[in-house]
Amino acid sequence: MKRALIAETVGTALLLMAVVGSGIMGEQLADGNAGLALLANAVSTGAMLYGLITVLGPISGGHFNPAVTLFFWLRKEITVRHGLLYGMAQVVGGLLGVWATHVMFGLAVLQQSSTARSGFGQWCAEALATAGLLLMIHGGRRHQPTAVPALVALYITSAYWFSASTSFANPAVTIARGMTDTFSGILPVHVPMFVAMQLLSAIMVTPLLSWLFSGE
Amino acid sequence: MKRALIAETVGTALLLMAVVGSGIMGEQLADGNAGLALLANAVSTGAMLYGLITVLGPISGGHFNPAVTLFFWLRKEITVRHGLLYGMAQVVGGLLGVWATHVMFGLAVLQQSSTARSGFGQWCAEALATAGLLLMIHGGRRHQPTAVPALVALYITSAYWFSASTSFANPAVTIARGMTDTFSGILPVHVPMFVAMQLLSAIMVTPLLSWLFSGE
Amino acid sequence: MKRALIAETVGTALLLMAVVGSGIMGEQLADGNAGLALLANAVSTGAMLYGLITVLGPISGGHFNPAVTLFFWLRKEITVRHGLLYGMAQVVGGLLGVWATHVMFGLAVLQQSSTARSGFGQWCAEALATAGLLLMIHGGRRHQPTAVPALVALYITSAYWFSASTSFANPAVTIARGMTDTFSGILPVHVPMFVAMQLLSAIMVTPLLSWLFSGE
Amino acid sequence: MKRALIAETVGTALLLMAVVGSGIMGEQLADGNAGLALLANAVSTGAMLYGLITVLGPISGGHFNPAVTLFFWLRKEITVRHGLLYGMAQVVGGLLGVWATHVMFGLAVLQQSSTARSGFGQWCAEALATAGLLLMIHGGRRHQPTAVPALVALYITSAYWFSASTSFANPAVTIARGMTDTFSGILPVHVPMFVAMQLLSAIMVTPLLSWLFSGE
Repeated sequence: MKRALIAETVGTALLLMAVVGSGIMGEQLADGNAGLALLANAVSTGAMLYGLITVLGPISGGHFNPAVTLFFWLRKEITVRHGLLYGMAQVVGGLLGVWATHVMFGLAVLQQSSTARSGFGQWCAEALATAGLLLMIHGGRRHQPTAVPALVALYITSAYWFSASTSFANPAVTIARGMTDTFSGILPVHVPMFVAMQLLSAIMVTPLLSWLFSGE
Repeated sequence: MKRALIAETVGTALLLMAVVGSGIMGEQLADGNAGLALLANAVSTGAMLYGLITVLGPISGGHFNPAVTLFFWLRKEITVRHGLLYGMAQVVGGLLGVWATHVMFGLAVLQQSSTARSGFGQWCAEALATAGLLLMIHGGRRHQPTAVPALVALYITSAYWFSASTSFANPAVTIARGMTDTFSGILPVHVPMFVAMQLLSAIMVTPLLSWLFSGE
Repeated sequence: MKRALIAETVGTALLLMAVVGSGIMGEQLADGNAGLALLANAVSTGAMLYGLITVLGPISGGHFNPAVTLFFWLRKEITVRHGLLYGMAQVVGGLLGVWATHVMFGLAVLQQSSTARSGFGQWCAEALATAGLLLMIHGGRRHQPTAVPALVALYITSAYWFSASTSFANPAVTIARGMTDTFSGILPVHVPMFVAMQLLSAIMVTPLLSWLFSGE
Repeated sequence: MKRALIAETVGTALLLMAVVGSGIMGEQLADGNAGLALLANAVSTGAMLYGLITVLGPISGGHFNPAVTLFFWLRKEITVRHGLLYGMAQVVGGLLGVWATHVMFGLAVLQQSSTARSGFGQWCAEALATAGLLLMIHGGRRHQPTAVPALVALYITSAYWFSASTSFANPAVTIARGMTDTFSGILPVHVPMFVAMQLLSAIMVTPLLSWLFSGE
């Protein structure tokens, strides 16, 4: 369990470094073109996810995401205690990743985002993006487990672009992104609704996915 | 069959979310650079297709495209009734995907495109793009079935760029894109010729592909 | 053999559609940013190569390139007659691909490029790019044959950027690109030196590669 | 051993051609948009690494990086002599790659960079980027050895964006990039601290990785 918690912490930290760091670099270099910055964000995050799930997945399952952990608890594959420890490891890892990124880029370590991300459309986007992520994870585990790292990586790369919220789809990532006033930040007061939609989506979609993938 | 129809509906809906959503996001962020918007479109659609075919393919075959369903009927791998139900599920899924995307981005749900896409060159492009797609699907199934998701994903990513029409190559996608007045839309009156070229291409190319891949 | 020659013709035609078509589309949409057009070129060509080699490779070997065919002849894996027929099929396919692309984009079918591509640096670039391509093909066949489509696809994506000539590395592609006055064209009078460098590189590098990969 | 040293030399040379060449091409074409140039850099380097590790890995291990060689020596998988010869082959290969790139682009062969890359943040970035690279290599070798080429390729593609130094993470690459006054260069006087941080990171992270991946 100790190795698993460290894997979740390290993995979520590296995930946030990819998300926040590529956002900063993209914004600095892209000459005001936010599309290019989002492309950097999407490519860097997707590529990192492929690696993290491949190498740390065998140790911890490679969640790095409390909504995924909730999904596994709802599927009765892990215990409550296991899930809560994972959630804590993920949130801690996310914060460490953001702070390490700030150190690398010579920014103030402690920040709060000033980027508003709110409204009915973005909340729907978070619910849909999380549902799609769980579809990929559950379907991949059911039909082709070795493809899960690529499935998650490519899905998130895609979701950065198609979901109106740029697809956070991860409560640990959302909380951590509240703590950076850079490209990928989210106003802390807007964090709770994003997290609520992500968890609600996991709760609602889990039985549907269990049915959809149970039949063959 | 119920699971298969739901898989086709959900899959086509997510495919349209990727196509239309990434087009909107790309256009909003790319600062008027349509090339960057099309890159977002191509990457997002390709990445989504990889996931959808991998996780839903084992349930429904992962068509999400009436031209592909027609191909399987011409190959006598499915019945007429099966094909018609798939076609309906795909069209319904496509529309739901477009409307969900409009909700996410806070746009009017019901729209009609005002983007003209017509002319001899674009019609040829649709026929060629559909033929190439079927080449990838049939050849992949014949030689390396596990590669089909990557084959379709990468082919469509490529075809966005090389076909003069940006490669719709899918009647359900074409109909649904008539219903959005955003980057990826197509004037509804121009939809029938695109659909006709896609289906005609499937009819003409299927015997050629059957011959080409039968010999080894 | 008939199937193999048709596979080489169709494959090279689709390859040229990807190269020339994505160049035209990239230039039209990229708002004068040649970097974005080359990115479209590189992504579209690489993605197409992955598909073509995967689905047509089992029929013809998936050369689509006289320098690769020369390599196999030098390795004594094919006969002279076989090689010459392949070369003709590839050149014919390349021309058909360029002309089909012009039809799609509503351009004059018969064109000649006016883009100068010459000089010592570019000739070295073609020799190096071809040598690298053969390294990937021979090494892949030796160590991991199923990876060859991805190896060629990713190598060419990379080589578009690192070689000063944007890496033609293929005589059939070079000849065909002489026949388009668009982004990817090459002045016909500059074609012979490119082709010579590609073939010379194949002749010089084949024994070295045979030695390098023979030892294990 | 001779074949292995040649593989390390050739591989590192091609790696540097990808890094330096794509930087030059990106800068020339990207119209002053450094974000697009870095994207070219990241895509070209990652794609090349996939190929090099796949085809040369079975001959030499596919290090192309003294920090990786140091890691294998610390793991007692290679001898000191073996490691020193590898390191020399890598440095020589890196320099040859840079000079070949200059020839291709018609630039002066011998150059020195004038791009400052220094400061606490960038040093941390190099340490973190190297640690992440070794995590991918060690974890991949432990859990899915066939995935190592993709793991390294995608990690470096990601790291270009998230690390404040654009992730050199390789002493041979760092030394060679001191010798080019183009996009990817680094002021020679800033090379030693980058190299030191990379090697220090390898020394510190190796026991941690050995523990993390030993438990299952």
